Amino acid sequence: MQEFTTDHISQQFNKELEALRQHFLTMGGVVENQVQDALQALLESNGELAEKVKAQDKIVNELDGLIDDECNRILAIRQPAASDLRMIVSISKAVGELERMGDEAKKVARMALSLIEEGESPRGYVEIDRIGQMVSRMVHDTLDAYARLDIEAAIKVAEKDRRVDQEYEASMRSLVTYMMEDPRSISRVMNVIWVLRSLERIADHARHTCQHLIFMVKGVNVRHVSASDLSNMITKKD
Amino acid sequence: MQEFTTDHISQQFNKELEALRQHFLTMGGVVENQVQDALQALLESNGELAEKVKAQDKIVNELDGLIDDECNRILAIRQPAASDLRMIVSISKAVGELERMGDEAKKVARMALSLIEEGESPRGYVEIDRIGQMVSRMVHDTLDAYARLDIEAAIKVAEKDRRVDQEYEASMRSLVTYMMEDPRSISRVMNVIWVLRSLERIADHARHTCQHLIFMVKGVNVRHVSASDLSNMITKKD
Repeated sequence: MQEFTTDHISQQFNKELEALRQHFLTMGGVVENQVQDALQALLESNGELAEKVKAQDKIVNELDGLIDDECNRILAIRQPAASDLRMIVSISKAVGELERMGDEAKKVARMALSLIEEGESPRGYVEIDRIGQMVSRMVHDTLDAYARLDIEAAIKVAEKDRRVDQEYEASMRSLVTYMMEDPRSISRVMNVIWVLRSLERIADHARHTCQHLIFMVKGVNVRHVSASDLSNMITKKD
Repeated sequence: MQEFTTDHISQQFNKELEALRQHFLTMGGVVENQVQDALQALLESNGELAEKVKAQDKIVNELDGLIDDECNRILAIRQPAASDLRMIVSISKAVGELERMGDEAKKVARMALSLIEEGESPRGYVEIDRIGQMVSRMVHDTLDAYARLDIEAAIKVAEKDRRVDQEYEASMRSLVTYMMEDPRSISRVMNVIWVLRSLERIADHARHTCQHLIFMVKGVNVRHVSASDLSNMITKKD
């Protein structure tokens, strides 16, 4: 985002935009950790780590409120134009996506605690591990793309979401079959299903965050462009 | 929203804000119908109606793109301040909530088609009907609150979300128990579970939309205020 903040007459305005950018990336870092920690807590039956993820929700909410206020104040006082305006609109929306990723991570942590208490599910951990790694990576790459204003990286994240959806659908089918074979496991397997659902959601939010980044850098709305068309569309616009 | 659009020197600016407001309410109307039709399609095994809900997704996406572009253009050209600025920021975010409500309605329609094809689920329709009616009403009341800038109505919607969550949790427990008793029904009951999950999401989006309205009218961020504290907080601010 560096290049968005260098050409202002007002030094103070520069500082405000830089602070906004820093707060956004800080919040992103907290959410990224929440996602990773929630997965680790679940896969290693670590209740303490799950509680830590839940507690971090407060920090995420505070940062969400702070960033939202900053965006509104800058809009009102600075009346920004062009790329500054797009940056603020983009961050103002992307911060809502981060906040919801954090909510889903908290749900995963809650399911980890249920699975520790009720007893581990006999199936689904391999799927959680595989999809969890893909989704963690997507969150990481999304923030990286924001930090470097990297459109190509953002497009790659959007494309990956389709892979996550496919893996999610396949896992869901196999877990439903498993529940039919072993009905005593239903309650525990359902916890795994909710975790996979949350991971699939986090991937969706990562894709939306990348769409907001593409709007910020390119000024085009790609919210209803399919991942496969995205690359062509952006290249054409160059 | 009328009072937000009366005091401008520029007649053209008035017209733009009024057009924005109309498009937002139009989109809301389409989404409200989608939710109601998806529920009716499911409860009456009406495949044609379910297909109609799916087809309307295109209209919702077009309106979403249109409104988003309008918001960005007004921000860039008019550099609005105070209540105008809050109205545009609020609608710009609320439109994203509407769009996701429409997505969830589409998922309900898809599940209706699965249930028609696979055979009805032996359980869960009473719950879908009850929660569906609550959620439909929330969507209706949300749009009504926006049309009349009615903060009290918005707070009531936010409070209702808690009721939906409670009903959802109770239904989920009873459906999991049912699946254990009749494992042959698992695949069909899972379709009902996904429907309830989508309804619960729609209620969340309605609550968020109302939070955006409260920000628009009152200028306070209530995204992390619990429903029970909301009423006190808003009254105190008066």
